[in-house]
Amino acid sequence: MDSIGYHKKYKGKIGTELKSPINNREDLSLAYTPGVASVSLELAKDSTKASILSLKSNTIAVLSDGSAVLGLGNIGPYGAIPVMEGKAALFKKFGGVDAFPICVDTQDNEEIIKIAKAIAPVFGGINLEDIEAPRCFEIERRLIKELDIPVMHDDQHGTAVVVLSALINSIQVVGKDKKINIVINGAGAAGTAVCDLLLEYGFKNIVVCDSKGAISKKRSDLNIEKIRLAKKTNKNNEVGDIHQIIKGKDVFIGVSKGNLIDKSDVANMNSDAIVFAMANPTPEIMPDEAKKGGAKIVASGRSDFNNQINNVLAFPGIFRGALNNKVKKITNKMLIQAAVNLSRLVKVPTPEKIIPNPFEKGVVEAVARAIQ
Amino acid sequence: MDSIGYHKKYKGKIGTELKSPINNREDLSLAYTPGVASVSLELAKDSTKASILSLKSNTIAVLSDGSAVLGLGNIGPYGAIPVMEGKAALFKKFGGVDAFPICVDTQDNEEIIKIAKAIAPVFGGINLEDIEAPRCFEIERRLIKELDIPVMHDDQHGTAVVVLSALINSIQVVGKDKKINIVINGAGAAGTAVCDLLLEYGFKNIVVCDSKGAISKKRSDLNIEKIRLAKKTNKNNEVGDIHQIIKGKDVFIGVSKGNLIDKSDVANMNSDAIVFAMANPTPEIMPDEAKKGGAKIVASGRSDFNNQINNVLAFPGIFRGALNNKVKKITNKMLIQAAVNLSRLVKVPTPEKIIPNPFEKGVVEAVARAIQ
Repeated sequence: MDSIGYHKKYKGKIGTELKSPINNREDLSLAYTPGVASVSLELAKDSTKASILSLKSNTIAVLSDGSAVLGLGNIGPYGAIPVMEGKAALFKKFGGVDAFPICVDTQDNEEIIKIAKAIAPVFGGINLEDIEAPRCFEIERRLIKELDIPVMHDDQHGTAVVVLSALINSIQVVGKDKKINIVINGAGAAGTAVCDLLLEYGFKNIVVCDSKGAISKKRSDLNIEKIRLAKKTNKNNEVGDIHQIIKGKDVFIGVSKGNLIDKSDVANMNSDAIVFAMANPTPEIMPDEAKKGGAKIVASGRSDFNNQINNVLAFPGIFRGALNNKVKKITNKMLIQAAVNLSRLVKVPTPEKIIPNPFEKGVVEAVARAIQ
Repeated sequence: MDSIGYHKKYKGKIGTELKSPINNREDLSLAYTPGVASVSLELAKDSTKASILSLKSNTIAVLSDGSAVLGLGNIGPYGAIPVMEGKAALFKKFGGVDAFPICVDTQDNEEIIKIAKAIAPVFGGINLEDIEAPRCFEIERRLIKELDIPVMHDDQHGTAVVVLSALINSIQVVGKDKKINIVINGAGAAGTAVCDLLLEYGFKNIVVCDSKGAISKKRSDLNIEKIRLAKKTNKNNEVGDIHQIIKGKDVFIGVSKGNLIDKSDVANMNSDAIVFAMANPTPEIMPDEAKKGGAKIVASGRSDFNNQINNVLAFPGIFRGALNNKVKKITNKMLIQAAVNLSRLVKVPTPEKIIPNPFEKGVVEAVARAIQ
């Protein structure tokens, strides 16, 4: 069966379920009128009780405007539905979180912010998803500030947690430390957040490249997010495209586009090179090819190779923890702890196993424990 | 257990459930990346396929702004949550419809319309709920016009279907016909829609009262909706409050407020009087009291008396039918057929049994069959 057949067969992937019994008139009068009036009055008086007495206790929104869906680009809210619904299904499957997809038919930031705030009452959190950079930064920042529920753009922070987790185990395998040289290719949502979290964890030497090459203080074409990155990275003011910048690096982290580099680029890296080629569905370099170039550790976004760097390792646990622990803002400190906990699940990391797979036991619990 | 205890125990009433299997990496690659990309591209190309390939196939929104919740008035979006969530639970329980509560934190009509349109992609229909009159009329009218999914304000049309259904059986019991004299007390959402549907079914003689008395062409204080009612009703230009207007009527339909009339008012009605006192939780007159006044048939909104006129008899079937039959607009003709089908479920109507109860078999199917 192909994916379209799968979706046609099941008519989508998620529905609703009853959490409480409604089997007779008495149940009906407790769940609905007349009994429900007392609960409504309670919540009208004290809205914080919604997280004890209603679906808000365990429900989040997976919100997208369809402007940057997977690697498919701006395909709009209908194109976004299968991905957001899939994400909602994974939230339930792995984290026991009731997630509902909201695909908004607008790409105006102020409208999206207004809509998210207006529909927030029933949600205990908002997972932003597949919104293009740099618009995603403003939306996330504003919603975190203006709402009293946790808001997280998963393309940024979910990715960052899993990359950091994989990198912690990778440097252990090759016996290197936080002073290694790292190049991140891609300065969108994921690249920016990965860079921020790696710096906060303590990695010192990072250069970020966008499609025009290394981001540095010398560049005059940078938007406000990239100016921020330029201040924190590329201490030696390296100049050049990815093929030049990758030379002499210990780690390549690709969150950009397929078929970007080849084995000769990997051969120009330091010995025991670490290559995370995460563009989907086609990586920056295929894992086999990276190995041929001499990479010691290779990870990708694909499920058909070892070391799949997959956000599903992080997001169910992050919101599971936020809901369990009544966390209102998800901090970098929590995310770093989540990455550390996740890396520790691999008892003896090896080049072919630097990260757990999503079906392993304990993944959600390890991440959730960090979010408090 | 009281209702607050019930809600605390279950932490609300609805969650999500998986409709499709996600048990291994292969399922994951069908439900999510990389397989899902093909479904996303399909929907980006042809958005109508969302109702075949996504949750839109069976999912509706239960949307409220909390401005007229039950009989509690304007208690806002948090106060609305338990009712909307309860309604979503009943949609699932009785109609197998996946309904999700959206409680919007705004009471500005244009904003509500904009939000409803923006979040419409994932929904196969919108059930508007507990929005105050006359604002509800504009919101419903605009959304019906501007969206290509069925939109229905249940306080209006769900109520109208169940009232018409009960009235069809009641006049059969007392041996009267469509020429009977009817007074409707209450000219808000429910009263207006009940009046419209009764007229369309063929009842000729209706007077509607609001809090200032009978609505007629002589009144100069009417809003646009009531002016419309004045043109279609009260042919004899009756003047006076409900205590005067009820005299000589065959049917009293109350959708207003508790303790409005007493047994002497009922005694002033024609013989074999029919009294539907539907204010919640306290009826316009208690059923026992109405009987003492000489009413032959009494119905109310309460589950602790016979003949409960309860919207749950209608709304799950209406949207079940709309989704099954790919109906884009719900018409009065469909609603009348739904009322007729519902009335026929009571094989031999009696004064104590003019309407089925929601747990009887066949209710949803009878209603759903009419919506096509």
